Amino acid sequence: MTDTCTTLKPRERIIGAARDLFRKHGINGIGVDAIVDAADSNKMTLYRHFGSKDDLVAACLKQAAQEAESFWKDLEAAYPGDPMAQLKDWARLAAGKLEVRDCNCEMASVAFQLADGDHPARAVIQEFERLQRERLTALCRRAGIADAELLANALILLVDGARANIRASGSEGPSTSFVQIAEGAIRAFAERGAAR
Amino acid sequence: MTDTCTTLKPRERIIGAARDLFRKHGINGIGVDAIVDAADSNKMTLYRHFGSKDDLVAACLKQAAQEAESFWKDLEAAYPGDPMAQLKDWARLAAGKLEVRDCNCEMASVAFQLADGDHPARAVIQEFERLQRERLTALCRRAGIADAELLANALILLVDGARANIRASGSEGPSTSFVQIAEGAIRAFAERGAAR
Repeated sequence: MTDTCTTLKPRERIIGAARDLFRKHGINGIGVDAIVDAADSNKMTLYRHFGSKDDLVAACLKQAAQEAESFWKDLEAAYPGDPMAQLKDWARLAAGKLEVRDCNCEMASVAFQLADGDHPARAVIQEFERLQRERLTALCRRAGIADAELLANALILLVDGARANIRASGSEGPSTSFVQIAEGAIRAFAERGAAR
Repeated sequence: MTDTCTTLKPRERIIGAARDLFRKHGINGIGVDAIVDAADSNKMTLYRHFGSKDDLVAACLKQAAQEAESFWKDLEAAYPGDPMAQLKDWARLAAGKLEVRDCNCEMASVAFQLADGDHPARAVIQEFERLQRERLTALCRRAGIADAELLANALILLVDGARANIRASGSEGPSTSFVQIAEGAIRAFAERGAAR
């Protein structure tokens, strides 16, 4: 156990400090010096674990993606074997993850900060987005929605919009209607499917 | 005329260079030295015109907000006196402004990069968002939508989501369905209003 701790701890401390500082200052607004200071580590350790600052950004997003897995587990656990109930609760659960300090926003935030070119974070973000879309489409399908792909796309645009808008307009903006709008969309698609 | 040109030109060059560099590197990823170099100007001129880098960011967003005014003028000019036609065309016009190099994304991008606290850009973004929401709500109302505020909120979340998602998933992601989903929402709200 001590072995694992001594090898894992500096890496975890660096990722923790980097995620915090990237959120506060943006990935381009903070240097490795400030990160290793905050992590109580040093540059040699950072480069040994991550190779480069860009790869550290990618590692931070990988950790955020792993944390997001709990979202789908919570949804399944809340209504086991009832995909329509899970879908209906998706909006309420997603609304709880819109706030500025939430890990989900790291993907969108970094995506806005990436310059053109092949930053290693781009692949992590695209894979994360692909997986979220696949999962939501599959849930819509299991819930009996005829046009599952279109409803999944609508819900993704709504949640991404709520997340972006809360940063631009504040929490009193259009994002206050997110749950109502998402639930309305689910209802409309479910009725349309039933009519066929 | 020459007087106006000599006083305006460096300011415009600095704003142009700053907007370009902020888009590429983020507001925290670029310094005033690089901006004045790209603008073929100097730091004294930058500080005389803008006071600080933060105020320069705010000035860039004010210019982007002014440019966005043409959006509403184009919409009105395309279907004068026909608010429902304008509303239906809103989605198609908005879809043409989702791409990465478009000025509209500067608001969302900077909003994601702002740390807590009172950066002068925050007020510019909030005022821009307030005005866009007010205009879209008024258009929905003129088009006879009973729940104009809710439809406007839905359309804002969808377009903000499309803009954010195109950066995360690429242009083959859920944003491909943006126009179809927005038109469907407008249709559904219009039918609901008629049924009352």
